[in-house]
Amino acid sequence: MSASEPVTEIRRSVAVLGDRVLVQPPEDSERRSKGGILIPATATSVDRKGTWGEAIGVGPHVRSVSTGDEVLYLPEDAIEVDVQGEAYLIVRERDVHAVGTTRRDGATGLYL
Amino acid sequence: MSASEPVTEIRRSVAVLGDRVLVQPPEDSERRSKGGILIPATATSVDRKGTWGEAIGVGPHVRSVSTGDEVLYLPEDAIEVDVQGEAYLIVRERDVHAVGTTRRDGATGLYL
Amino acid sequence: MSASEPVTEIRRSVAVLGDRVLVQPPEDSERRSKGGILIPATATSVDRKGTWGEAIGVGPHVRSVSTGDEVLYLPEDAIEVDVQGEAYLIVRERDVHAVGTTRRDGATGLYL
Amino acid sequence: MSASEPVTEIRRSVAVLGDRVLVQPPEDSERRSKGGILIPATATSVDRKGTWGEAIGVGPHVRSVSTGDEVLYLPEDAIEVDVQGEAYLIVRERDVHAVGTTRRDGATGLYL
Amino acid sequence: MSASEPVTEIRRSVAVLGDRVLVQPPEDSERRSKGGILIPATATSVDRKGTWGEAIGVGPHVRSVSTGDEVLYLPEDAIEVDVQGEAYLIVRERDVHAVGTTRRDGATGLYL
Amino acid sequence: MSASEPVTEIRRSVAVLGDRVLVQPPEDSERRSKGGILIPATATSVDRKGTWGEAIGVGPHVRSVSTGDEVLYLPEDAIEVDVQGEAYLIVRERDVHAVGTTRRDGATGLYL
Amino acid sequence: MSASEPVTEIRRSVAVLGDRVLVQPPEDSERRSKGGILIPATATSVDRKGTWGEAIGVGPHVRSVSTGDEVLYLPEDAIEVDVQGEAYLIVRERDVHAVGTTRRDGATGLYL
Repeated sequence: MSASEPVTEIRRSVAVLGDRVLVQPPEDSERRSKGGILIPATATSVDRKGTWGEAIGVGPHVRSVSTGDEVLYLPEDAIEVDVQGEAYLIVRERDVHAVGTTRRDGATGLYL
Repeated sequence: MSASEPVTEIRRSVAVLGDRVLVQPPEDSERRSKGGILIPATATSVDRKGTWGEAIGVGPHVRSVSTGDEVLYLPEDAIEVDVQGEAYLIVRERDVHAVGTTRRDGATGLYL
Repeated sequence: MSASEPVTEIRRSVAVLGDRVLVQPPEDSERRSKGGILIPATATSVDRKGTWGEAIGVGPHVRSVSTGDEVLYLPEDAIEVDVQGEAYLIVRERDVHAVGTTRRDGATGLYL
Repeated sequence: MSASEPVTEIRRSVAVLGDRVLVQPPEDSERRSKGGILIPATATSVDRKGTWGEAIGVGPHVRSVSTGDEVLYLPEDAIEVDVQGEAYLIVRERDVHAVGTTRRDGATGLYL
Repeated sequence: MSASEPVTEIRRSVAVLGDRVLVQPPEDSERRSKGGILIPATATSVDRKGTWGEAIGVGPHVRSVSTGDEVLYLPEDAIEVDVQGEAYLIVRERDVHAVGTTRRDGATGLYL
Repeated sequence: MSASEPVTEIRRSVAVLGDRVLVQPPEDSERRSKGGILIPATATSVDRKGTWGEAIGVGPHVRSVSTGDEVLYLPEDAIEVDVQGEAYLIVRERDVHAVGTTRRDGATGLYL
Repeated sequence: MSASEPVTEIRRSVAVLGDRVLVQPPEDSERRSKGGILIPATATSVDRKGTWGEAIGVGPHVRSVSTGDEVLYLPEDAIEVDVQGEAYLIVRERDVHAVGTTRRDGATGLYL
């Protein structure tokens, strides 16, 4: 390859495997009351607190989550992946406890 | 989209997945004797104490719990989920030990 | 609903789920020798001591225990459930090691 | 029921469930050499020491043990059950490592 | 039974159950180099050291070990059983890693 | 073999077994922001951080990774293997969370 | 047997069972760079370091390793076995991560 020829940089498309979901983590994962007041992490009855994040990719075996849904996961179940300096998260579908979706009515009467 | 056009906010309906139950945690999970006297948490023969909460949503794989039932769960099995500043809990059906229901007679002679 | 109309209180019947047994814990779980003398908890050859309690409800998947049987369980396998200020226990059928029953002869020559 | 009528006491027959064996623990579980000399518990090459006890009841799923056999079990696998002030043990068939039996020849050349 | 009639002592034949092997532990489990020099237990590259012992009984489900074979086991997998003051060991077939046998050629070129 | 005859050195080809992937670990596994600034390992929301490395060999049971793909793995899931003084890594396919590939579009909109 | 008759010593052939591989451990398991320089054990990116050793025997259920192959294993997965004062190792096939073999091309481009 002569020096003048443009070096075509190999672009590799990122895909998540199996039953995994690629998540854009929330900007700020603090909890705010309806009035917007910051709720301290300790003010809850159970130890494990879920976090919402947007699904931006799903593996071939994922059934109940689609790209664009909000997914509820526990940080301890997530793996961080760096793509071009940006941090994303990967969780398995079995570790997604709830979704916020426009695709159907969740029948809980609750909305994000 | 011109500035005057109303920004339609995307409402995402919350749904629980798989075998999970969305629970409205009890206001005050203290135990009171029949006469209403507060029973200290220590006054029992076993370590693990169940808590009752109302089911406000069930996943597609849930068979023995319906929305509106009271469900008995252990706090350590629950995950907290925040929706619009309100804290709800998610437990799996296998971690629901008993229900208080109007749908059938539990044949225990006990009522909530 | 007008103020004069009686507020019908919703009574929810308590049911245990799956393979679980609802147990009335014993009044006093001390062990007494035949002569009625209190046997200290330490005076035994093994660490795990079973407790007898009466079964007052069984889940739909329970096969070998009936309401009214005495069941032998380990406290560490039990979950406490409060109903109207009374403490009951829930154990899984697989954690019931023996029964005292009037339904059949246990062929051990032993009777409660 | 009038005061003069005899109160018929309910006798419940004790039965072990599933794959469990009810064992009469040995009087004294010390080990004695052939000459009858007490062998200290520490004088062995391995940590786990089995104990022999007589089977006095078997559950419906037990195949290789019969009432009257001597069974070898590890104390840590046993649960103690109190019947009328007497302490018995319950072990699962899978935790019975050897038997001493009159029903067949064990083909080890060893006898209890 | 009158006092003069001989009391026939019940002899119980010892049998191992399931997939277990009854082993005569080695007299001295020290390791000696070819020249007979004692090899300190620490002089090896791995933590787990097997011990050879003779199989003197096998359970009904054992396939690859016969009475008379030398079997290689780890002490932590063995249970000690006392028969008439003699200490024997019981291991499961799945915990027998190698055999020394006259029944076939092990195709390792090694002999005990 | 006479002294003059060339000693043919046995070359053994390295193959990974089963569902394993042979990975060329990254030169420098530091994370850099888009502008190239080093991102300290602590600056993330979750504990487990994936690392990208190139797959240079796959076992016969591997389905979703091909030689030449970038694979995302967790260091704690990897085994180091030394070949001729060079250190490579082996991970199981189930421990590969995402790939960067030219073979297909990962549908995440992200590229390595 | 009269004193003059030669005592025929019983030679037992050593065989590994099931899915196990008998390994000749390496003389010196230090790592050397291509130039032969000793690489300190700490100079690597992951905790678990594999070791190469020659397979000198395989059990009847082994499929992907043959006698004479080099096998990569982790010391913590190996059991030491002493045969006539020589120390060998036993590992299970599932704990063999890679092989160096003359039987086929491993398609990694790497050779031992």
